[in-house]
Amino acid sequence: MKNIVLAAAAAALISTPVWAQPPSSQTERLREAALKDDIAWEITEGLTTEIGPRLAGTEAEARARDWAVRKLKALGFANVRVETFDMPVWVRGEERAEIVAPFPQKLVLTALGNSGATPAAGLTAQVIGFDDMAALEAARDADVRGKIVFVSHAMRATQDGSGYGFFGAARRSGPSMASRKGAAAIVIRSIGTDYHRNPHTGVQSWAEGAAPIPAAALSLPDAEQLQRILKRGKPVTMRLLLTPRNIGIRQSGNVIAEVPGRDAKAGIVLVGGHLDSWDLGTGALDDATGVAITTAAAKRVMAAGRPRRTIRIVWFGAEEVGLFGGLDYLAKHGSEKHAMIAESDFGADRIWKFDSKAPASARPAIDRIAAALAPLGIAQGATDRAGGSDIGPLSQSGVSTIQLNQDGTRYFDYHHTPDDTLDKVDPEQLRQNVAAWTAMLAEAANAPEELAMPK
Amino acid sequence: MKNIVLAAAAAALISTPVWAQPPSSQTERLREAALKDDIAWEITEGLTTEIGPRLAGTEAEARARDWAVRKLKALGFANVRVETFDMPVWVRGEERAEIVAPFPQKLVLTALGNSGATPAAGLTAQVIGFDDMAALEAARDADVRGKIVFVSHAMRATQDGSGYGFFGAARRSGPSMASRKGAAAIVIRSIGTDYHRNPHTGVQSWAEGAAPIPAAALSLPDAEQLQRILKRGKPVTMRLLLTPRNIGIRQSGNVIAEVPGRDAKAGIVLVGGHLDSWDLGTGALDDATGVAITTAAAKRVMAAGRPRRTIRIVWFGAEEVGLFGGLDYLAKHGSEKHAMIAESDFGADRIWKFDSKAPASARPAIDRIAAALAPLGIAQGATDRAGGSDIGPLSQSGVSTIQLNQDGTRYFDYHHTPDDTLDKVDPEQLRQNVAAWTAMLAEAANAPEELAMPK
Repeated sequence: MKNIVLAAAAAALISTPVWAQPPSSQTERLREAALKDDIAWEITEGLTTEIGPRLAGTEAEARARDWAVRKLKALGFANVRVETFDMPVWVRGEERAEIVAPFPQKLVLTALGNSGATPAAGLTAQVIGFDDMAALEAARDADVRGKIVFVSHAMRATQDGSGYGFFGAARRSGPSMASRKGAAAIVIRSIGTDYHRNPHTGVQSWAEGAAPIPAAALSLPDAEQLQRILKRGKPVTMRLLLTPRNIGIRQSGNVIAEVPGRDAKAGIVLVGGHLDSWDLGTGALDDATGVAITTAAAKRVMAAGRPRRTIRIVWFGAEEVGLFGGLDYLAKHGSEKHAMIAESDFGADRIWKFDSKAPASARPAIDRIAAALAPLGIAQGATDRAGGSDIGPLSQSGVSTIQLNQDGTRYFDYHHTPDDTLDKVDPEQLRQNVAAWTAMLAEAANAPEELAMPK
Repeated sequence: MKNIVLAAAAAALISTPVWAQPPSSQTERLREAALKDDIAWEITEGLTTEIGPRLAGTEAEARARDWAVRKLKALGFANVRVETFDMPVWVRGEERAEIVAPFPQKLVLTALGNSGATPAAGLTAQVIGFDDMAALEAARDADVRGKIVFVSHAMRATQDGSGYGFFGAARRSGPSMASRKGAAAIVIRSIGTDYHRNPHTGVQSWAEGAAPIPAAALSLPDAEQLQRILKRGKPVTMRLLLTPRNIGIRQSGNVIAEVPGRDAKAGIVLVGGHLDSWDLGTGALDDATGVAITTAAAKRVMAAGRPRRTIRIVWFGAEEVGLFGGLDYLAKHGSEKHAMIAESDFGADRIWKFDSKAPASARPAIDRIAAALAPLGIAQGATDRAGGSDIGPLSQSGVSTIQLNQDGTRYFDYHHTPDDTLDKVDPEQLRQNVAAWTAMLAEAANAPEELAMPK
């Protein structure tokens, strides 16, 4: 996969006469200076240390918004404000599991978002195991009814993170499918690629006709342990205790700051990431680094002089639990002219490729960006598609988008686990990210061409 | 450190005319066949899957003894039996910690062996931090009294594991020192080298005059988080809940099996590891692989024909919590003639060096062992010292000892954590271990020379 993608990227690069479109010398100076950036580290370290976990809709996320407002003001940005919205909030409770028979032992797991609860005394049932979603789908309801379903999958690490979309179905759809078949509960193999006893949580939503049941993810060592036990062929009984709760409607919000531009008609360049995190880790790679990298880049472009276009920085709220922040932004700002949008939400390992989706009028600017990123070891990927999570709804509404792709090989070792902590951030790779975003943003904010899609 | 040790080992090897003492062709055949061994994997997989965690003195360790007896009999060993002994048992309870102020967030920790308990509602106190044991020792009692002490250390991974002895003082002596100074509790940086949120437990004993207090280890990411918070300079308040219990005197035991020798006067060659494990993981590297490697080697030597000396395999009980099994063995068997003893209790990464402690009469046998191990990439280390954990007391009483040293670079990533699970065992490295132990054991069991120390 990697080689094919790189070859395609190289071919695309070769076919593009980037030497005809050098980036401005200012962009090159900004890029080189950003390789010594400390701003992104300071934001990442500060947010993960002084706030830590910040689950959407909780008091911790509210503290994170206050922190964000203080930080963005201190960095000198204009129009710093919070745009609040309401959302339903689910919070984790106790979570324990053990094999009762034939080989008694505890297992490590964590509830998936929107999981139902077991009785307060726990739930004991026989386990039925499936190697993948297709096997669960093919199972007769009578064989599943009243049991604890276990679903595995074969996700492996990939540079582009594509395994997440494919194998993530066990988390996204497994609980609803198990519920519809009458299962008492479901435990999945964590959607991840590491071998540590840190399970991967993540959101899932109950499909039409699927009543909430307890739904959790085993760490990968525990999932393989359960598989080995199931393979012994004896009936396997598990006791499960999960006590999450829906606590009703609470407030979340997007934190927004700007670098005002010279030309109001040129449209906005939006950059950002998400402020909320899952509750298990401190949300370092997901997504403190995302807000940190994009904010550091905006600060650097701002320091070089007022840009042509307004740069709008958005630290989205409530991404993890259902893109509430992105949808709220779209509702409130979708009618404004966005010249270009871009989000960082894939950790902070080095950027190796960039994708874009822009009109023909933007081609010279995209070429200059390609030339500005090439010295950082970044190849040009797709020119007909790009996206993001919070910006996904806006991007899909027909807005020019750039996507800078971090190497995702180790991203799913930490994703949504207790292990997503500051020590996983490599300061040198973080600087490469800032340099790439600075170069891209300097060009996008100042390009004389029309970047926005025609209406 | 590594280069110095290797250079010394190489010098020792060069100064020893091993080519003058070739191993027997049978030893070489056994060694090569053992490179395809599956016995050690089967034992490791079986014990960690069918028993899992097996804390000394608990019902799980008793199940493990039953499992061991069945397995050793099935492998065809003679005189398979359990030698029981009594011991005090401490069991883990709930364990939670959170920073209450200035930056509220949960921390991940685990109680150390023999930790005291907090009140059932938890204990809230100010944290006082120390970079190392020397700083704690130098602290005035008045500054420590009533506080939660945090002690850090600077342990790094080493090939020979030497960092554990040095930096482990924070675990072994920190709790008693904090107690004597009037601390309310102590949390240490885990004695480990990984960056996962899996804390490292381990035994500690209360020194004279040190009343039990709650004592726990933070995972390394949590310890560094606490240090960053302390460095902000504001008073830090922690809430701690630990509810371990002493459950009184229970039974543990050593499981023993033999390959009867031809010459009763030649003495016994003892090999083994420990059967018990800490309760957090499944005790794969510590020490399922130890009993598996040594037992697989004994099985291979047995299959080649009755050896000169009796081989005694011991799966020691209750090692982790205070060497109770080793001490019981010494009390019951210390007066028997042991020609050579050796233990595997350092994981299953490849063996890179062997040490020995034997009389001059054994020199030709040691030379043949060196020659038999060299093709496996194993260098000769010390010839005047060797040891082990369970066999430590017996070895120190003046018994010839061989120590095959696994590479310990990643051992303390997993040691005493929930992460010590089967997936951490590399089957190919495990086979190299079996080959080394088989070659050593074939030579030691059949050597015509006197191996035992003179009385």
